[in-house]
Amino acid sequence: MSPRSHPSAVKLRGLYVILDPEISRDRDFASIAREAIAGGARLIQYRDKTREKGEQYAIAGTLQTLCRASGVLFFVNDHVDIALAIDADGVHVGHRDLPVAVVRQIVPETVLVGASTNSVEEARAAVADGADYVSVGRLFPTGSKADTRPATLETLRAVKAAVSVPVCAIGGINESNIEDVIAAGADMAAVISAVVAAEDVREAARRLVGSFSSLR
Amino acid sequence: MSPRSHPSAVKLRGLYVILDPEISRDRDFASIAREAIAGGARLIQYRDKTREKGEQYAIAGTLQTLCRASGVLFFVNDHVDIALAIDADGVHVGHRDLPVAVVRQIVPETVLVGASTNSVEEARAAVADGADYVSVGRLFPTGSKADTRPATLETLRAVKAAVSVPVCAIGGINESNIEDVIAAGADMAAVISAVVAAEDVREAARRLVGSFSSLR
Repeated sequence: MSPRSHPSAVKLRGLYVILDPEISRDRDFASIAREAIAGGARLIQYRDKTREKGEQYAIAGTLQTLCRASGVLFFVNDHVDIALAIDADGVHVGHRDLPVAVVRQIVPETVLVGASTNSVEEARAAVADGADYVSVGRLFPTGSKADTRPATLETLRAVKAAVSVPVCAIGGINESNIEDVIAAGADMAAVISAVVAAEDVREAARRLVGSFSSLR
Repeated sequence: MSPRSHPSAVKLRGLYVILDPEISRDRDFASIAREAIAGGARLIQYRDKTREKGEQYAIAGTLQTLCRASGVLFFVNDHVDIALAIDADGVHVGHRDLPVAVVRQIVPETVLVGASTNSVEEARAAVADGADYVSVGRLFPTGSKADTRPATLETLRAVKAAVSVPVCAIGGINESNIEDVIAAGADMAAVISAVVAAEDVREAARRLVGSFSSLR
């Protein structure tokens, strides 16, 4: 399969904020999303490994509506059924979720598919299987996800050189290292704690987004 | 919406065995399914709230192949995406999973949809939303599922009288009470521990199946 050329691929750029209830436990998802978008986030992902599907469906529907109204792409992590149910812009799958090729078969062509990778081989395979972007990580130590595999800025550079789709850096990204990942070729930088656990979500997003403009 | 008339609806009869790793922890799902089918089970469901989707996808695919070869219907609990990915005969949703009407929209017409209910109102609503069968329970005390709501044999009788689709009894069903649920109108009896935790799965299934033949 040749790499897809999705009409929304041009939007796969900038700050990518992942909402995970295990990190932002006491806050309302919609408020965090609104503030992150006001701060300049261009992509939002909802990642929930604990709630029942009925509740996730309601939350995801609210977030998709909110993102669409702002021209921001919204992704559901792992749960392809919820993505289908709410007509999400996209779905993101990790290496222990449904395989990319299978996801590609059960979602319409219009749905963006992102895949977690941590090597050139995995990234190439994901693109061949129909991924619209690949994430590379975890780049730096993080407390926000138990099941992660390490990668380096060198991996990120190599993946960027190897694939034609946008590349998203992930794992422990914050103000101290975001310029390094952008310099290494990241089209998107995914952040979790650095934004959703921040005292001022909008300001935290704004400062991270600033790194994209100053380097590009 | 009027009740659906699915070509496989005629198969919604008999012993329905639910494979749940929290009950059959140390046993191989395929072996249990094979033994249960050899004992006369007519429907198999895979319910897994713990494994990652990639692993569930592989297990469900194996079970669907095995069931199809035996003319037994196979259902995936909750995860509509896995059901779609493996082309399952059906999917079963509980009251905290994706709503029946939403599931109906994202699966092909050929996929059977079952819904958990515990009142006539819920059963009628599920059928109106496109359910091909409804389960009624939990009828008896059970240790196999934490999140259940009680129902009685009277509820079962009332649901059977109220809806046109097949009705499945569930919750603590075993040799001591299966004749009561069949007498109350159950087209299917769903069992978990009584079969999957049995020393001899095939024999346990066989004895339960005997109740259907002796009463019908």
